[in-house]
Amino acid sequence: MNNKPDTFPVDVALIHYPVNNRVGEIIGSAVTNLDLHDIARACRTYGVDTFYVITPYRDQQNLVQEILDHWLTGHGSKVNESRKQAISLVKLCDDLDGLFDEVREKRGCCPTILATSARLIKNTVSFKETAAKITKGEPLLLLFGTAWGLADEVLAQVDGVLPPIIGASKDYNHLSVRSAVSIILDRLLSRKI
Amino acid sequence: MNNKPDTFPVDVALIHYPVNNRVGEIIGSAVTNLDLHDIARACRTYGVDTFYVITPYRDQQNLVQEILDHWLTGHGSKVNESRKQAISLVKLCDDLDGLFDEVREKRGCCPTILATSARLIKNTVSFKETAAKITKGEPLLLLFGTAWGLADEVLAQVDGVLPPIIGASKDYNHLSVRSAVSIILDRLLSRKI
Repeated sequence: MNNKPDTFPVDVALIHYPVNNRVGEIIGSAVTNLDLHDIARACRTYGVDTFYVITPYRDQQNLVQEILDHWLTGHGSKVNESRKQAISLVKLCDDLDGLFDEVREKRGCCPTILATSARLIKNTVSFKETAAKITKGEPLLLLFGTAWGLADEVLAQVDGVLPPIIGASKDYNHLSVRSAVSIILDRLLSRKI
Repeated sequence: MNNKPDTFPVDVALIHYPVNNRVGEIIGSAVTNLDLHDIARACRTYGVDTFYVITPYRDQQNLVQEILDHWLTGHGSKVNESRKQAISLVKLCDDLDGLFDEVREKRGCCPTILATSARLIKNTVSFKETAAKITKGEPLLLLFGTAWGLADEVLAQVDGVLPPIIGASKDYNHLSVRSAVSIILDRLLSRKI
C-alpha cells in the first residue's frame, strides 16, 4: 500500500541545533513531543515527502526513536492508522550537513533550501514565487527553527528566507513552530493537486 | 497600554464538551496545555478578540485557571511578555449557552456563528465569503472541536460550517486542532489590516 499517494518533492526539517536562545546565544533545544505529531500530521496533509528532525544529542534521538517506535510498530500503530501514516514521514538526522547530503542524494540534485524566520531579514523569497517553483516540480527543503529561531550560521547556508508571518498587528510575531509550519505549508501547498 | 491594538470582532472558541470520541459517542475531553498556548498565540497574531475555552468540568477549569495565573500574574508574566499578551485573550466558559450569551451581549447583536469540521458537511460557508464578512466588520464566532470533532448537537446550533482543510491527498484529513485554528485564522484574517 502506498501511504503517500500525492507527495511533492518538498521536505521539511525541524532544527534543534544550532538555534538561538532568548538572548541570542547559540544553543541546542530539547525535542517537543507535540512538534513531532503536529508537524508530521501537517506534512502528511499537505503532501510533504519527509519530515526531518535534526538533533545531535543521542538522548534526544533515543527519545524521538521511542516515540516513533510506539506509533510505527508498537501499540499506537494498532489503534491509530492515520497517526501512523503521519509519523512514518519522520526521519532523524544528526546535523545540517547530514541533512543536506541526504536530501541532495535523494533528489539527485541540489534542492532550493529556504529558511523560515519570525524576523524580516535579507534574502527574502516570496510565498508566491516559492509556490510557483513547487508547481513546476522543483525540489525544495524548508528549514524551521525551534527555541528563538535558526542561528545565523544556518541562515548563511540557505538560498533564501521566507517572509515572517504577519497577522493583524505588526508588533506581535510569536507563533509556535507548530502553527508556523502549518500556515506555511497551507500557503505553499494547499489545493495544488 | 493597549495590548490588542488591531483586533477584529472575531472570537474563537475551543469546545471540550460536547465532542465526539473515536467511535462517534459524545464525550467531554480533557484540556491540553499546548492548545491554550498555541491557539492563544495564533489568536493574538491574527487579531482575534477573545479565545474562549469551553469546559463544564470544575477540575479542568481549575487547571486552566492555574495555567492562566502563571502567565498573567505569576512567574511566567515576568519572563515572557509576549506569552502574557497571548494568554490574556483566554477566557473560560462553562458551556455553549454561556458562550453564546456572552458573545451576544459583548457584540450587542447576534454574531455569525460558524463551526469547523474535518468532514465536508451540509451548510458549508466558504473561506472567501467569510473573509469578506470580516472585512465589512461583521462579528463572527468560530467554533473548534477537540477529540474527534464537534458533536452534531453543536453543528445544529450554528449558522454554517467552514469547509474542511484539504491538502495534497483527499483521503488524509487529520490535522491537530492547533494546526487547524492557525491555518483557518491565516486564511480568514491575514493581511486584512
